[in-house]
Amino acid sequence: MSRLLRSSNTVAKCCVRTLWAPAGIEPVSPCVCTDVPGPVSKKLKAEMDAVHQTSSVKFFADYKKSIGNYLVDADGNTFLDIYMQISSLALGWLIGLLYLTYDYLLVTSLISILIDNIKVCLIVRTHFAGYNHPDLIKVVSDPRFITAAVSRPALGSFPGNDFPGEVSKALTSVAPKGCPLVQTMLCGSSADENAIKTAFIWYQTQKRGGKPPTEQDLESCMRHELPGTPHLSVLSFKGAFHGRTLGALTMTRSKAIHKVDIPAFDWPAAEFPRYKYPLEKNIQYNTEQDAMCLANVEELIAERKKAKCDIAALIVEPIQSEGGDHHGSPQFFQGLRDITKKNGIVFIVDEVQTGGGGTGSYWAHESWNLSSPPDMVCFSKKFMVGGYFYAEHLRVKEAYRIYNTWMGEPTKLILLEKAVEVIERDNLLEQVRRVGKGLQSGLRNIESAYSSKMHNVRGLGTYCAFDLDDSEHRDKFVDIAISKGLHIGGCGVTGIRFRPALIFGEKHLEITLDILSKSMKQL
Amino acid sequence: MSRLLRSSNTVAKCCVRTLWAPAGIEPVSPCVCTDVPGPVSKKLKAEMDAVHQTSSVKFFADYKKSIGNYLVDADGNTFLDIYMQISSLALGWLIGLLYLTYDYLLVTSLISILIDNIKVCLIVRTHFAGYNHPDLIKVVSDPRFITAAVSRPALGSFPGNDFPGEVSKALTSVAPKGCPLVQTMLCGSSADENAIKTAFIWYQTQKRGGKPPTEQDLESCMRHELPGTPHLSVLSFKGAFHGRTLGALTMTRSKAIHKVDIPAFDWPAAEFPRYKYPLEKNIQYNTEQDAMCLANVEELIAERKKAKCDIAALIVEPIQSEGGDHHGSPQFFQGLRDITKKNGIVFIVDEVQTGGGGTGSYWAHESWNLSSPPDMVCFSKKFMVGGYFYAEHLRVKEAYRIYNTWMGEPTKLILLEKAVEVIERDNLLEQVRRVGKGLQSGLRNIESAYSSKMHNVRGLGTYCAFDLDDSEHRDKFVDIAISKGLHIGGCGVTGIRFRPALIFGEKHLEITLDILSKSMKQL
Repeated sequence: MSRLLRSSNTVAKCCVRTLWAPAGIEPVSPCVCTDVPGPVSKKLKAEMDAVHQTSSVKFFADYKKSIGNYLVDADGNTFLDIYMQISSLALGWLIGLLYLTYDYLLVTSLISILIDNIKVCLIVRTHFAGYNHPDLIKVVSDPRFITAAVSRPALGSFPGNDFPGEVSKALTSVAPKGCPLVQTMLCGSSADENAIKTAFIWYQTQKRGGKPPTEQDLESCMRHELPGTPHLSVLSFKGAFHGRTLGALTMTRSKAIHKVDIPAFDWPAAEFPRYKYPLEKNIQYNTEQDAMCLANVEELIAERKKAKCDIAALIVEPIQSEGGDHHGSPQFFQGLRDITKKNGIVFIVDEVQTGGGGTGSYWAHESWNLSSPPDMVCFSKKFMVGGYFYAEHLRVKEAYRIYNTWMGEPTKLILLEKAVEVIERDNLLEQVRRVGKGLQSGLRNIESAYSSKMHNVRGLGTYCAFDLDDSEHRDKFVDIAISKGLHIGGCGVTGIRFRPALIFGEKHLEITLDILSKSMKQL
Repeated sequence: MSRLLRSSNTVAKCCVRTLWAPAGIEPVSPCVCTDVPGPVSKKLKAEMDAVHQTSSVKFFADYKKSIGNYLVDADGNTFLDIYMQISSLALGWLIGLLYLTYDYLLVTSLISILIDNIKVCLIVRTHFAGYNHPDLIKVVSDPRFITAAVSRPALGSFPGNDFPGEVSKALTSVAPKGCPLVQTMLCGSSADENAIKTAFIWYQTQKRGGKPPTEQDLESCMRHELPGTPHLSVLSFKGAFHGRTLGALTMTRSKAIHKVDIPAFDWPAAEFPRYKYPLEKNIQYNTEQDAMCLANVEELIAERKKAKCDIAALIVEPIQSEGGDHHGSPQFFQGLRDITKKNGIVFIVDEVQTGGGGTGSYWAHESWNLSSPPDMVCFSKKFMVGGYFYAEHLRVKEAYRIYNTWMGEPTKLILLEKAVEVIERDNLLEQVRRVGKGLQSGLRNIESAYSSKMHNVRGLGTYCAFDLDDSEHRDKFVDIAISKGLHIGGCGVTGIRFRPALIFGEKHLEITLDILSKSMKQL
């Protein structure tokens, strides 16, 4: 398919463009020279298949050549990447060495002239070296990072003397309001699993009037019997994604292929709003959605109480991401906060995908104007480590209850510390809000032009999405976009999701909207 | 307590000794100058407590000053470390920069003369620079490592073009026999959780005659109902440790404090042998233990079949480590292999703690002489990433079933690749076997001298243990040993476990036995 889009001239340009990255300069536009995956990716896939599963591998990337917002694959194709490793890279590739702050208007024309001449390109590099910021690369060569990389501590028992400072600078400096305590883990699943463990412990401790487990608790739990192993549950939502380990997978309700054949806890799932767009034209319908879902939550809480399988915690994403970028209104979340408060249920906001700046602030939930803050906020992805912030009343008193060998990873904290510094210094959240407005209005324009195939444009910051008619059209659209150099992701059944890095700027937006428009036309 | 053991002279030496590490030289002996935790650790603990749990923190370490087999804490105390971050460091601290291969006899006397003179110490450093091997430090400054550190891929979908080679060199080069495929994860819990998911998927796929899930499976699993959400279980053993996420925690049966207040799956636990030592004097008793435990396994399998809650997988540690260093005999494991084979149950060997060389080979199970290899072997800790090796018949055909955002961590693979190279080049497994023999016979000598308080010396390689009378004596012994400069860990209720790095040599053994003997006397 992509073969049709190429001229022989493009191929030559591709080869040259992949040389820009080592020179420290973002390409001016994407460039696709082969099918995707190309021959090199296919060869690597066949090679790896002998020792490792490859069923979900799209293509192999050449990360050494990838730069800024651009991802280069093993075949030398250069994509504008607005998927960013499933939303897990905050600052784009090799941000330290390669992120440029040059003026787009002045420089792109210069680069365009030079684009076929590598020797001159090197001169350009020298010229622009002053504008690069090598912070993250510097971090990796810092003795503190090297020590952490080759002498990884068991953080729960023997943290390094740098660790308290790293926690403060990298994490509690951006702690959500009301959750001053933090626990690091390794990934989103372990964040969510340990968050609900903390909630269970708190719930049972409350029942005991604040006392530690009794002898009978300790003895019976070894046989998985009451009272030590309680019949408790966590309430999650249909369409939710909270991870894939067995506890987290029970709470996940996005796609059957994640869950089928795997045993699950008997925990309930509530309805999550499904709004009609544009919001301002569907106020009554959407308000009814909120009311229906909140009523469902209250029913399930009562039902479980009656069945003596109390709901100890409610976990919810601000935007159901993997499940299809379904938004909830501030009113809906205000209702959840009030219901959980009234029923003594721990209110956990899972910001594994929404956290870290893509919505225009560190935490999507902070715009909800809740009557009181959430009890716990989970994070991972853009935060490089997993973990959760939590309120003081949830602190676990006894040692070794929330514990494992590594409990996080200091090298990630050291990088995160610098990333937070860069986000603040360069006003990247402000940029996300600004560029996000442009992205949303641009998407609405395309939706107007192709209203028969494109639906439900929605977003917060650059964290945007729209729907196509069905999964077949959606998958086809992703293929068309990538053949034109735009690396974008699907979500849910019909959704297309935008997860650019925080350094996604106006020039990237322009290219994005252009390719989206052309791809929609071709669909 | 430790105050009694010190002279004012020792304090001065301590301060000097902590300067040896940056100079690239292992100290000749441990040195403790304060209580443990000392004032600096206590201050850091109080500071961190405001934002992060500290209940299990023993002390804060100064990893920049730690070197080889020696761990330096935040107060400048220098411990010979035979616990190595709960057995998670293969090669000791800062192996690249600091590991020395000098001849012990020649050099220690020289160092002893120089020990109080820092200026001369620096000369020594220059002198011995040629003997250091800076491999791992070089790895961290390699562009491949830097790229992996600052541009972390979603390995399941967009692996880097280096990834297949890294998997081969770091992992499949040491794959256990019969398990040529590997899946990387982030930690031991996620390794075990995904191993049992793979087993469940295989078990259900067999039932369907090899076919993918039906429409009815896919639809019913979203409601946690049959047939999509099956009633299956995993058989683990009393005393086992398999991690702390809810699925893994169900299989864990070592300590109540890990399990209490947390809901669990209704999965069975079988008896694991509890041998009498010395083995050669208790052959009949121990053989009966094996027979009793194997019979118990067969009973539980039949029971569960009857209850229509089939056991899909059996998971077992070669040595129940966290649970108390309980060994099983080759005959016991041969029995397990045959029973699982006969019943179509996936046989998973959890080598998260035993794997990586401490027992004298990469995999403890390879000495069992099984009728056929295990179906899966889980790893983490010394392997730096988590994951599992598995047999070809367990390959999951459909994409996105064993999947998550990161699926491992390339920087760890790059370091592991070098570690494996060093283990081979320096014959470290041979060294573990040799030094392990000395450790075991040394421990038996101490046991003979203190037979009223020290019991059940056992081990494989340097992976050794012994028991004390009760947990109170055990905890006291750990405190005495650390006050004398030996950092050692407990396990189970009464166990002391040895988990030195692979570079633990004869000179470290001599100091270890000396401190153990003195500590036992003091107990």
